[in-house]
Amino acid sequence: MIKNILLAPDSFKGSLSANEVARAMERGIRRVWPDAGIIRIPMADGGEGTLDAVLAAVGGQRRSARVTGADFNPVDAEYGLIQKDGHTVAILETSQVVGFSLAGAQPVADRTTLGLGELFLHCLDQGVRHFMIGLGGSSTNDGGAGVLAALGVRLLDQQDHIIRPTPLGLSGLVKVDFSAMDARIKASSIVLMSDVRNPLCGADGATAIFGPQKGVAAQDVPLFDGWLQGLADLCDAACGRLISAAEGAGAAGGLGFAFQLLGGKSRSGAEIVCEFTGFDAALEQADWVITGEGLSDVQTLLGKVPYVVAEHARRSGVPVTLVSGGIDQRALPRLAGSFDSCFSITFQPVSLQEAMADAENMVSNTLEQMTRLATMVSKPGSAR
Amino acid sequence: MIKNILLAPDSFKGSLSANEVARAMERGIRRVWPDAGIIRIPMADGGEGTLDAVLAAVGGQRRSARVTGADFNPVDAEYGLIQKDGHTVAILETSQVVGFSLAGAQPVADRTTLGLGELFLHCLDQGVRHFMIGLGGSSTNDGGAGVLAALGVRLLDQQDHIIRPTPLGLSGLVKVDFSAMDARIKASSIVLMSDVRNPLCGADGATAIFGPQKGVAAQDVPLFDGWLQGLADLCDAACGRLISAAEGAGAAGGLGFAFQLLGGKSRSGAEIVCEFTGFDAALEQADWVITGEGLSDVQTLLGKVPYVVAEHARRSGVPVTLVSGGIDQRALPRLAGSFDSCFSITFQPVSLQEAMADAENMVSNTLEQMTRLATMVSKPGSAR
Repeated sequence: MIKNILLAPDSFKGSLSANEVARAMERGIRRVWPDAGIIRIPMADGGEGTLDAVLAAVGGQRRSARVTGADFNPVDAEYGLIQKDGHTVAILETSQVVGFSLAGAQPVADRTTLGLGELFLHCLDQGVRHFMIGLGGSSTNDGGAGVLAALGVRLLDQQDHIIRPTPLGLSGLVKVDFSAMDARIKASSIVLMSDVRNPLCGADGATAIFGPQKGVAAQDVPLFDGWLQGLADLCDAACGRLISAAEGAGAAGGLGFAFQLLGGKSRSGAEIVCEFTGFDAALEQADWVITGEGLSDVQTLLGKVPYVVAEHARRSGVPVTLVSGGIDQRALPRLAGSFDSCFSITFQPVSLQEAMADAENMVSNTLEQMTRLATMVSKPGSAR
Repeated sequence: MIKNILLAPDSFKGSLSANEVARAMERGIRRVWPDAGIIRIPMADGGEGTLDAVLAAVGGQRRSARVTGADFNPVDAEYGLIQKDGHTVAILETSQVVGFSLAGAQPVADRTTLGLGELFLHCLDQGVRHFMIGLGGSSTNDGGAGVLAALGVRLLDQQDHIIRPTPLGLSGLVKVDFSAMDARIKASSIVLMSDVRNPLCGADGATAIFGPQKGVAAQDVPLFDGWLQGLADLCDAACGRLISAAEGAGAAGGLGFAFQLLGGKSRSGAEIVCEFTGFDAALEQADWVITGEGLSDVQTLLGKVPYVVAEHARRSGVPVTLVSGGIDQRALPRLAGSFDSCFSITFQPVSLQEAMADAENMVSNTLEQMTRLATMVSKPGSAR
């Protein structure tokens, strides 16, 4: 008999925050089991919602700074300061600075990550030397040129002029000078939260895999990729290591590359959120875990939130159900290796727009029906 | 622990027959519980599939006769002859003669039920005097004028000419003469299988409620309704009873009215199919019933297959789950009074056309996930 349920969804991107999903799940369950023990742990993977998840879990200060947005207009970006192991740690979220909603009408060739570097500097100026940076949800593809420029790395053209730190600007890059780089960076620890393992360039690189969804036209992929390769060649040579080929260098349009150049280490964002939220301790109380995300497919198994949740649940011997906005049926056989059951929140043929508008209600209704089925199985006829 | 499952779906109209749905359900369950006891009873309610359901349950002969289709072109209509209580009973299915796929491009104003009367006559000629007529799935709205005409009822205009037995033909009707009606009809028993309780005319009548889905333009509803009212007035007067106001007179575009004039008695098609299939005996073996239909909404509770199945299951104390192509979420609170849980087969936002094309696969996948959830609840972790 199920008594305690742990709700640990990711956000349904573009529709509901992870917190909204978890609350809607709880409402649906309570219609059937009003007295169930329910723990809500809204999850994140380094993308949008990561700052919320961490601050909700460990407290800390939510702050804001005005920096340069992806389209060069100012943007007020939130970040967090938390205490961890005796240090102040800054929690930065890439999507707060260069997220899709902040890119305006600026073509991707002219978008920059300058503001994320400015936010990093802003924290350095406050004495912060520990950083955890969520890399998901970027609208940029500048190889992290903006971050490098903001932190004192000089990106120069044939005339020794500083280039514009954008993909198009990189087309004129001929020289990289690290000599003026902010010295405080070497004294800092930088953890990158991401579920992306791609290298910076090539067939599996940032542009080829993630460029099109940011607005890179299919025929322009080689062009953008070449610009990033130019940056990579100069930087790799300067630091004496092939960082552009490292796992995760292709995260967030190359921010993974830039921050690894600065000494950053890439880790699973979902794993870090699990640590902050005390997920494993909560699991010990649970006899059913429910997770979910906007769309589940084979990509889910590449370290996305539901997969990480399922791995933890499996190690604790707790069954886990996936409830997502949509599930690619072709992935069901493989998802079955991680999830005890998989349900979509859709109740009938419906457009994506309609589903997103009604998602909260659909989540509650789906959880209600699942709970009714569970009741029926454990005590026939009693749900009616 | 669930050991025996009774699968009793209606067809998913336009997509899968009831038999196909039941087989797809079984495949999904067997992926998880290969040794489950499963009984399949494909259901019907008097519409398409009723003949199949009855013949599958009790045997009998499947025959065919060439009669006039809804568009006046010949159509080969199947019917059944079964033995029941020492009699030969003809099983007629309206949709075999004037179903939507047989209406061609003929406007609804010019469609006729003549062929159903011809099929009735054909059976009379073979000595049959017991009839069970499924009324669902008609494309016609002629008040049963075609059936009456075929069986010798003279429908006459101002010049005593016989009118065309169509809605438009009824516009000239001024006189009805039952004197030449086939005398064998009075010696016959006629059971009408239907879940429609509407009267022939008025705001709840055949035209107002079902006309638009047959092609009656909204502004033409009063016109068509008036034509049927003319037929009703003359026939009700001739037989001395207000049969047009009787429950079910508005079934199948007024076929309910015509056959009640001929002495037919209306009964729930789903109940009759339950009797033929030995549904209640099968229920005694079951500890889970799964039913379904194309689309479930509040109409489902007005005597459609899943409702009748749920009522029988409730009386036997067996839990029942609804699995439909789509479920109107607004109906969930009311559906909860009849069903222990309700699931749609959709796995993501998808168009109706896509859902119908992939329905078989979706049914199997849904049943698999439900069964996995049931396994998880009864024995945590074991489905994985």
